[in-house]
Amino acid sequence: MHQDRVKRIRRLMDEEDIDIVMITSEPNMLYFSGYSAISLERLITLLIHGGEDRVSLIVPKLEEKRAEENCKLRDFELISYSDSENPIDILENILSRSRQITVGVEETIQFKYVYPLMRRLENIKYSLVDGLLYSLRIVKDMVEVEILKKAAEINNQVLLEAIKNVREGISEKKLMMYIRNYALEMGADEVPFALVQSGVNSALPHQEPTGRVISKGDIVVLDIGVRYQGYYSDLTRTVVCGSPSKEQVDIFNIVLNAQQNALDTIKEDVKVENIDLAARTTIESSGYGEYFIHRTGHGIGLEVHEPPFIKTGNKDSLKSGMVFTVEPGIYIPNQFGVRIEDNIIVTREGYINLTKLPKSIYIEDYEL
Amino acid sequence: MHQDRVKRIRRLMDEEDIDIVMITSEPNMLYFSGYSAISLERLITLLIHGGEDRVSLIVPKLEEKRAEENCKLRDFELISYSDSENPIDILENILSRSRQITVGVEETIQFKYVYPLMRRLENIKYSLVDGLLYSLRIVKDMVEVEILKKAAEINNQVLLEAIKNVREGISEKKLMMYIRNYALEMGADEVPFALVQSGVNSALPHQEPTGRVISKGDIVVLDIGVRYQGYYSDLTRTVVCGSPSKEQVDIFNIVLNAQQNALDTIKEDVKVENIDLAARTTIESSGYGEYFIHRTGHGIGLEVHEPPFIKTGNKDSLKSGMVFTVEPGIYIPNQFGVRIEDNIIVTREGYINLTKLPKSIYIEDYEL
Repeated sequence: MHQDRVKRIRRLMDEEDIDIVMITSEPNMLYFSGYSAISLERLITLLIHGGEDRVSLIVPKLEEKRAEENCKLRDFELISYSDSENPIDILENILSRSRQITVGVEETIQFKYVYPLMRRLENIKYSLVDGLLYSLRIVKDMVEVEILKKAAEINNQVLLEAIKNVREGISEKKLMMYIRNYALEMGADEVPFALVQSGVNSALPHQEPTGRVISKGDIVVLDIGVRYQGYYSDLTRTVVCGSPSKEQVDIFNIVLNAQQNALDTIKEDVKVENIDLAARTTIESSGYGEYFIHRTGHGIGLEVHEPPFIKTGNKDSLKSGMVFTVEPGIYIPNQFGVRIEDNIIVTREGYINLTKLPKSIYIEDYEL
Repeated sequence: MHQDRVKRIRRLMDEEDIDIVMITSEPNMLYFSGYSAISLERLITLLIHGGEDRVSLIVPKLEEKRAEENCKLRDFELISYSDSENPIDILENILSRSRQITVGVEETIQFKYVYPLMRRLENIKYSLVDGLLYSLRIVKDMVEVEILKKAAEINNQVLLEAIKNVREGISEKKLMMYIRNYALEMGADEVPFALVQSGVNSALPHQEPTGRVISKGDIVVLDIGVRYQGYYSDLTRTVVCGSPSKEQVDIFNIVLNAQQNALDTIKEDVKVENIDLAARTTIESSGYGEYFIHRTGHGIGLEVHEPPFIKTGNKDSLKSGMVFTVEPGIYIPNQFGVRIEDNIIVTREGYINLTKLPKSIYIEDYEL
């Protein structure tokens, strides 16, 4: 599987005249090698050489054993360095050839790894290859789809449990801690976020849980991310503690409607931006356009936010096997917000919704 | 406080002929503005202009309100952009002057933010300013020391509780989850890691907790990090579940001795590498030199790993107010590892140990 992915990126490298791809991000490292590591303080990089059948993995000594055990590639060259050595010297040695070469790097590579190479070696041209890498990753294969389904299943369970625990007197932080724990017990490997936003806090889409205590009549937005075998699920439901007001119900219904209209547009070959347009038009025509302050969704996979981005101007076409969120929202400053978020897989005829939970503002409507 | 820090960096910028410093990392953002944000998917940057009394904060629309509320600087210019705008255009507009300017960036800035500027603007020279920024941050002020003390206090409590819960039959993962939860209850804002490494797993210093179940006779390395008000504590203890073997006790005592010898060298004006040398010499003279595979310690503050790095070749001198870990270890492959880690503050005459926990291989010796 990993060997095959390397073969496919080599074909793309060939088309784009890229001599070496230098992988430093965790998602791509995992995608191409099966080894999960991030290049933060110390350089960890997978060099995929074009043309020849050669892959080099450079790691600090501390990581040597893990790299050896986890890298699934055949015949990779493992180079390790100690804390007293500079990994840039190793790179310089590999990359210093007489002729001009093009090295593909990721957008997220830290400047500290590129800057010294720029100064030392004049034979290198740099090229951002994220588009190239994502062009492989954007369509999920069968193995990936199975893992993503399982991640969503876990998240469904967790979100249901979270909703069942929304009650008067519990603080956002306390509920968040409970959710995190429960998610780990249910089999999540990580819980990148468990947002609990109550009352006015729900008007800020990125607000971390606070000490605010939930009272009757509060809207509560629950936005939970879980990671399972490297892959993410990202789901949101909005409920009211006790009885909702008419305004809460009205806004909830507009968002629900916007989401359904967005979902209804999905199938292979449709333009990505059409999904956003469907959600946005619904909300705008209800007079709340200015309060829908983010895009309609984002891809999920080895990253919790990755292409395709479901937004205006994205003229790409949907392909079977793309997996993303659909999550319109309305945020009325200093009052409250509503967001509903599902995870779906595009199919030839439409989509499969990985989210089995009901969508209701009433807590009592939630049963799996 | 933040205003004063900006003033101090401006003086250094002036000495180094840097026209603008472009802050993108969370620790520096927090240090200079009080606003906690990371520039990952969307650019968030604080531009400190040299010479004139001007600071610009560029954030995505989603962050506008948080930025406004949390930035403690007087008279900063807040510029926000929507998802359909490109923040590089804003930067280009600010940085495009007729004359040559030098822009200071951090090592960790993602290449995607520098690369387009390099291509669009020819009047810019780039300079890595991490050293400059750390030269301020490396010595902690009174406010910071108080927060670091509190972070260590919380971590002390948590580590004690962790040790008390080491028992036959509990898995590493289960203990890790308990520790994380307990730390949040004790007031930690985040728990960046709670490593529980038992038996052979303790031989890998970075091994994440697994499903391995602890049995009698296992060594257990507990390495816990907590974050409090932006600042970190990072502590490690090693104990044995039940009765330790002679070999476990012997190696434990070598590490304990190495740590004490390292601590004994600490006071203002001593060279940093001397601390590492003291630990390393102790372990080498016991015949385990090849198994001490990392540096002796690292600074802690707004990052869990920051200067000063306590390692061979660091010729800098200790200054009062530096805060760092002292954590020698021995790791015998496929057998077990031992590490003991304290957090200390350098003083004129020596150091203050922020870690109040005993150091013993016997669980029953731990009482606060």
